[in-house]
Amino acid sequence: MKAAAKAHTNIALIKYWGKRDDALILPMNNSLSLTLDGFYTTTAVEFQNSLSADRFYLNGRLTEGTAYSRVTAFLDRIRDVAGQPDRFAEIHSTNHVPTAAGFASSASGFAALAAAATKAIGLAPNEQELSMLTRQGSGSACRSIYGGFVEWEKGTEADGSDSYAVPVAPADHWNIKVAAVILSSDEKKVLSREGMKRTVDTSVYYPAWVASIPDDLAAIKDGIMAKDFEKVGAIAEANCLRMHATTLAARPPFSYWQSTTISIMQAVQDLRAGGVPAFFTIDAGPNVKVLYTPEYEETVRNTLRHISGVHDVTVTGPGSGVSYI
Amino acid sequence: MKAAAKAHTNIALIKYWGKRDDALILPMNNSLSLTLDGFYTTTAVEFQNSLSADRFYLNGRLTEGTAYSRVTAFLDRIRDVAGQPDRFAEIHSTNHVPTAAGFASSASGFAALAAAATKAIGLAPNEQELSMLTRQGSGSACRSIYGGFVEWEKGTEADGSDSYAVPVAPADHWNIKVAAVILSSDEKKVLSREGMKRTVDTSVYYPAWVASIPDDLAAIKDGIMAKDFEKVGAIAEANCLRMHATTLAARPPFSYWQSTTISIMQAVQDLRAGGVPAFFTIDAGPNVKVLYTPEYEETVRNTLRHISGVHDVTVTGPGSGVSYI
Repeated sequence: MKAAAKAHTNIALIKYWGKRDDALILPMNNSLSLTLDGFYTTTAVEFQNSLSADRFYLNGRLTEGTAYSRVTAFLDRIRDVAGQPDRFAEIHSTNHVPTAAGFASSASGFAALAAAATKAIGLAPNEQELSMLTRQGSGSACRSIYGGFVEWEKGTEADGSDSYAVPVAPADHWNIKVAAVILSSDEKKVLSREGMKRTVDTSVYYPAWVASIPDDLAAIKDGIMAKDFEKVGAIAEANCLRMHATTLAARPPFSYWQSTTISIMQAVQDLRAGGVPAFFTIDAGPNVKVLYTPEYEETVRNTLRHISGVHDVTVTGPGSGVSYI
Repeated sequence: MKAAAKAHTNIALIKYWGKRDDALILPMNNSLSLTLDGFYTTTAVEFQNSLSADRFYLNGRLTEGTAYSRVTAFLDRIRDVAGQPDRFAEIHSTNHVPTAAGFASSASGFAALAAAATKAIGLAPNEQELSMLTRQGSGSACRSIYGGFVEWEKGTEADGSDSYAVPVAPADHWNIKVAAVILSSDEKKVLSREGMKRTVDTSVYYPAWVASIPDDLAAIKDGIMAKDFEKVGAIAEANCLRMHATTLAARPPFSYWQSTTISIMQAVQDLRAGGVPAFFTIDAGPNVKVLYTPEYEETVRNTLRHISGVHDVTVTGPGSGVSYI
């Protein structure tokens, strides 16, 4: 009744932006991500007969509140599937995801938790089943089951039975780099779940966002297969800007960007103007991730580090899928 | 054969963004502006038999190139209407519009030129005819014929005969303030005409922008009539953000914003969070204009002046329409 797993976070190149079902976490559009080597969560789960409730230790500290509620609600689903509704677990989870870099630790966190908890309770889901289950803890986490380039198929069924991640290309297919730019201040005024919901409900641009995804996906998958960096980068950058534009047309409008976000975007565009193929992508927050190929490591790092408002830069590359440890 | 006129620039609260006819300058959507007291152009036109071409002095200097071409092409229309194709003019124009504040001097410039040139050549257009003619020199200039709050009706005729400005409320209807925030650097990488065209041609959000205008217009006119500042400000700010969002979905995407643009937007939102009703609007460039009511003059000025990247702040209010001097 004990198991431990490790899962990496991922960065979306085609963004997940909007739910068609809040409870089951079913998305409005397919998305595509790269699982990242450098940022991960390890989680150990042990079901114990003596427990009358789950106990969740995050980074060594017993945790209550929202984080605990999300974990225990997710374990409820696993208990349901296993037919063991009354078995509770002690969970020890460690995040190796710098919060300041603007990665959601929920992606690696729920992927590792799903893998460890299902094994600990005696289930043996295949990767597709594991992805589908993980999705119900945190949407983007379903992509972290696989390494490398991964697509999350939105599916069309009301019960979510066809909404899960599928591998596009493994981590060793293509060594592209991702620089996570850490800002000096990173207050997020609109939470991503709330912002996503407000956008779906009120943005006049939202339908056109959803309609624009199939073309982006087809083109970026071609680019990934052909290792065409300019193509992949340009599509990812345009997709990110189109996503952020939806928030500016919400009622009331809002933006995740800070002044430094714009400075970094411009620095990346200036790099390109100077012949360095670099592209940016931005999730629901002010932080920027910069994509480039290994030969430009030095130039990109130096450029990003010297932007006013940038605290640090952390570089990583393609990572593997979930594994037992 | 000699006349001089003065016209003020204007700031759009509902943006003109996209042409349905490039040659006649016919817009895709109605727009609404406030004519501004502080920023204006004076222009004297004298038709002289001795001239075989127009001579254009801008701020005291004989001018060639694009500025000259636009002026002389515009005078060609006036010569056509007057049936005097071979009479050329000496034009002296002085702009009292700080370029660094990000106002298009073409609005006040073409309104003053249209008024002075038509009178000098012996025409006597009424205001509607003058607005229609001015529109063909510079779109937004057609609104500067009137003072105060002005709507530009896009019209539906192919020849533009129903596309002109109409007065909504005069300058003395409501004393609201406009602070023009002057940035330390103001490089504009995408010109407004080019950006507008790329957006109309390629942005997947553009149709929804056009469709969103009638509701904005009806609501802001209600707000202006009722002198409901919160309503007018919120609509203007949302309209501006929705306009800028269209550029992020163009192919390739682009933005007019600089990092300081975001800093000012956030400062204005912080003012509101602190109980000061202030709203921003941004044209096709990085500069921000802040709307507020006179009692908050000191607070708004001080807040804006102390933002990093802000060089200066110039305040003005509602101005009058075109006049002969």
